[in-house]
Amino acid sequence: MERTPSALIITLLTDFGSTDYFVGSVKGVILSINPHVTIVDLTHEVASFSVAEAAFLLHSTYPYFPKGSIHVAVVDPGVGSDRRPLLVHAGGFYFLAPDNGILSYVFRDIPNYQCVELTETKFHLPARGNSFHARDVFAPVAAWLSRGTPIGQFGRGSHHPTTIPLPAPRHTDNALEGEVIYIDRFGNLITNITKNDVDHCGPRDQLTITIGDARCRGISRCYADGSQDAPSTIVNSSGHLEIFFYEGNAAHHLHAKIGIYVTVTGR
Amino acid sequence: MERTPSALIITLLTDFGSTDYFVGSVKGVILSINPHVTIVDLTHEVASFSVAEAAFLLHSTYPYFPKGSIHVAVVDPGVGSDRRPLLVHAGGFYFLAPDNGILSYVFRDIPNYQCVELTETKFHLPARGNSFHARDVFAPVAAWLSRGTPIGQFGRGSHHPTTIPLPAPRHTDNALEGEVIYIDRFGNLITNITKNDVDHCGPRDQLTITIGDARCRGISRCYADGSQDAPSTIVNSSGHLEIFFYEGNAAHHLHAKIGIYVTVTGR
Amino acid sequence: MERTPSALIITLLTDFGSTDYFVGSVKGVILSINPHVTIVDLTHEVASFSVAEAAFLLHSTYPYFPKGSIHVAVVDPGVGSDRRPLLVHAGGFYFLAPDNGILSYVFRDIPNYQCVELTETKFHLPARGNSFHARDVFAPVAAWLSRGTPIGQFGRGSHHPTTIPLPAPRHTDNALEGEVIYIDRFGNLITNITKNDVDHCGPRDQLTITIGDARCRGISRCYADGSQDAPSTIVNSSGHLEIFFYEGNAAHHLHAKIGIYVTVTGR
Repeated sequence: MERTPSALIITLLTDFGSTDYFVGSVKGVILSINPHVTIVDLTHEVASFSVAEAAFLLHSTYPYFPKGSIHVAVVDPGVGSDRRPLLVHAGGFYFLAPDNGILSYVFRDIPNYQCVELTETKFHLPARGNSFHARDVFAPVAAWLSRGTPIGQFGRGSHHPTTIPLPAPRHTDNALEGEVIYIDRFGNLITNITKNDVDHCGPRDQLTITIGDARCRGISRCYADGSQDAPSTIVNSSGHLEIFFYEGNAAHHLHAKIGIYVTVTGR
Repeated sequence: MERTPSALIITLLTDFGSTDYFVGSVKGVILSINPHVTIVDLTHEVASFSVAEAAFLLHSTYPYFPKGSIHVAVVDPGVGSDRRPLLVHAGGFYFLAPDNGILSYVFRDIPNYQCVELTETKFHLPARGNSFHARDVFAPVAAWLSRGTPIGQFGRGSHHPTTIPLPAPRHTDNALEGEVIYIDRFGNLITNITKNDVDHCGPRDQLTITIGDARCRGISRCYADGSQDAPSTIVNSSGHLEIFFYEGNAAHHLHAKIGIYVTVTGR
Repeated sequence: MERTPSALIITLLTDFGSTDYFVGSVKGVILSINPHVTIVDLTHEVASFSVAEAAFLLHSTYPYFPKGSIHVAVVDPGVGSDRRPLLVHAGGFYFLAPDNGILSYVFRDIPNYQCVELTETKFHLPARGNSFHARDVFAPVAAWLSRGTPIGQFGRGSHHPTTIPLPAPRHTDNALEGEVIYIDRFGNLITNITKNDVDHCGPRDQLTITIGDARCRGISRCYADGSQDAPSTIVNSSGHLEIFFYEGNAAHHLHAKIGIYVTVTGR
C-alpha cells in the first residue's frame, strides 16, 4: 500500500464560532500529532447547524488551495448519532466531514471520488463523551492523513453519501428564475444563477434582473459602477449573479432573505 | 543552566477581540523574535475583563496541545498596576499570564508547578506606555522562551499566585446542586457538575435534572437524541453536565445566565 | 536585477469579515504559490468600506513585524474601477493595497518609498469577474514577492499615490484641540493627540482633558488608576491620548463617536 504524500495544509470550516474552546482544542489535537502542518481557518461563523451554508462556503473556497490539502468541514447537529463520519478523496483534495450533505457541491462537481467511513477507532481520541467529533475523530484523522497514512487505513469503503438539494435556476418561456442562496457580510445577495446562465440570456446590457419589487437594467462591470440608491447587479468573484448597493447593504435595503426569487429577462 | 527545549507552538487567549490592532501587534512582536514559531489563537473573544471565563476556556483547551507548548493568557484589567506578570511551568506546559487568577484551574489541577515573576526587563519591549503588557511583556518573553531561554532567566521565583474561587457542586440530602459556569455560542449551558459527579448520582436514565422551572429526565447520549421543544442534558465534550435544546438555544429558551442553579436528583 | 530576499510573513488587513469565503480563498491562493509562508491576520473586521479605519489599524500594527514582512491591506470599494493596485516598498516593509489612501500613514511616516503599479497581469489569477482583487491580484503578487520576485517585475513605477487627510491636533491660545480617531472593542476613545503633544502641554498631573461635557484632571499611569464612574485618560500603547472608564465602556458612557473633539489644557 502506498503512502499518501504528506500534506502541508489542513483547513477548518465549522459553525463553532470563535468565542469558545472548540476551535482551539481541535487545533491542539492536530498539532499534537503533526506540529508541522499549516492550519487555515476558512470560517467558523457558519450559521449554527446550517449544512447548506457550509456546503456553499466550502464550494467557494476549497478549489483555491493546493492539491493535497485536507479540508475538514464540520457542521454536525447529528454528532454521535448513527450519521457516518467520512473521508473523501476527490479532485486531488481530501475532505473530512459528517455524512449530512455538507459535501454536496463536491460530489456534484467531481463525480469520481473515493469515500471511506472512519471506522478505525485507533486513529480517534479516546472517547470523552460523544458530542465533539471534530476534536475526537476528524482532527486526529486529518493529522494522521497529513503525515501520510493511506486513506484506506482509516476505515471501510463507503457508498451513497448523503446529499442535499442544490437549487438550480429554472427556465421559463422568456426568463430565467433563480434564488438567493447566500448573503455575505456586506449584505450582497448571491444567487444560484451562474456566469454561464447569464451568458445564455443575451447581451448583458440588455438584461433585466428582478428581485421582489426592484428591477435592475444591465449588469455592472464593477461595484463602483453601481448606484448607492438603487440595486445593481454584478457577476461576482465566485461566478454567481449578485445583487448589490454600491457601498451599501442590499439585504437591508431590499429586506431580502435567503430563498427569495431573482429573475433574469432578456430583451 | 540547561536550555529549555525550544517550543514550536505559542497559543493566545485574550479579551482583545479581533477588530483592533491588539492581536496583530502581539503576533508581530513574537514573530520578530522567533519567525519560526506557530501561533495559535485559542480565542480573543473572552467577555471584556472576565478572568473567570478566560480561566475556564484555558482549562478546556490547553491539555489538547503538545507538551512544551507556551500558553499566553491575558485578560488584564490591572495591567500596569502592581499585579505581577507571571511565567508558570506546570505539567510540561508553559503559561504566561497576569497574576489575577486566570491560571486558577491550572494550579488546582497541577499542584506541582514552578512560578517566576517577569522582573527581567531586558526581555521586554522598550516601554511605550504601561497599558499593553501582552505586546510589551508577555509576547517577547513567550518568543524568547520558545527559542530556548531558560525560565529562570526571566525573573525571580514567585509564590502564592492569586486564585479565584472555582465553584464546586454541593451535596445535599438527596441531590447534587451545581451551577451554570459557561454558555457557549450555541446557547448550551455548561455546568460545574462533572462526569464523575454524575456517575455518583446513580444510573443515568434514572436521574432528574432541574434548572429553574424546567425538568429533564435522564441524560442523552448525543444531541440528536434530545428534543427541539424541551431541554435535554448531556455529559459534554469537556466532561461537564450540559443543558441543551436540539438544534436550538437553551440559554434563550430558558432565559438562563451564568450562575443559575442546576440540580441532579437520583431516583 | 537582484532578487528580493524571500519573506517569511504575509499579513492581511481587510473589511472582509470572517463569516464568508473571502479570507479563506485569499489564503488558498497565497499558499498555492508559497506553501511555506506564514500568514497572519491583522484583522478582517474593519468597518465595511472604511479606508480611514484601515489606515489607522495598519499604522498601529505593521511596525511590530520583522523587516521584510509583506502587508496586504485591502478595503476596496473601488475594486475593478480605474483605481490602481499598488506595491509599495517603504522602511524595509512591503505593502500591497489599492490606491485609495489606506497607506496614508505609511507615506507620512516614511517619505522615501518606492511605488509600483501592479500592471503585470502574468502574476495575477486568470480573471474571474472583476470584484475581488484581494484574491485575484494582491494575493498572488504577495506570494510571488514572498518567494523573491523583484518588485520591479510586478509593474511600472508609480507616483503620487492617493492619500486621505490625517487630522492633526490644533493649537489654540492656551489649549490643544484634537479629536477621537478610533474606538476600540473596550469602548476606549483613542485621539489623534500623541504622547509628544501631551508632553508639550505641561506636567501631566496639571493637565485638564475635556471631552463633550466631561472633564478629567491629570493623566493616569495605568487603567487600574482610573475610575469606574468617571472618565480618565491615559497615554496608551500606541502612543496616543485615550479616554477610558476603568473596566467600563467610555464610548457608551459618553455617547462618543469618531470625530468628537478632545481638548487638553495646561494650568
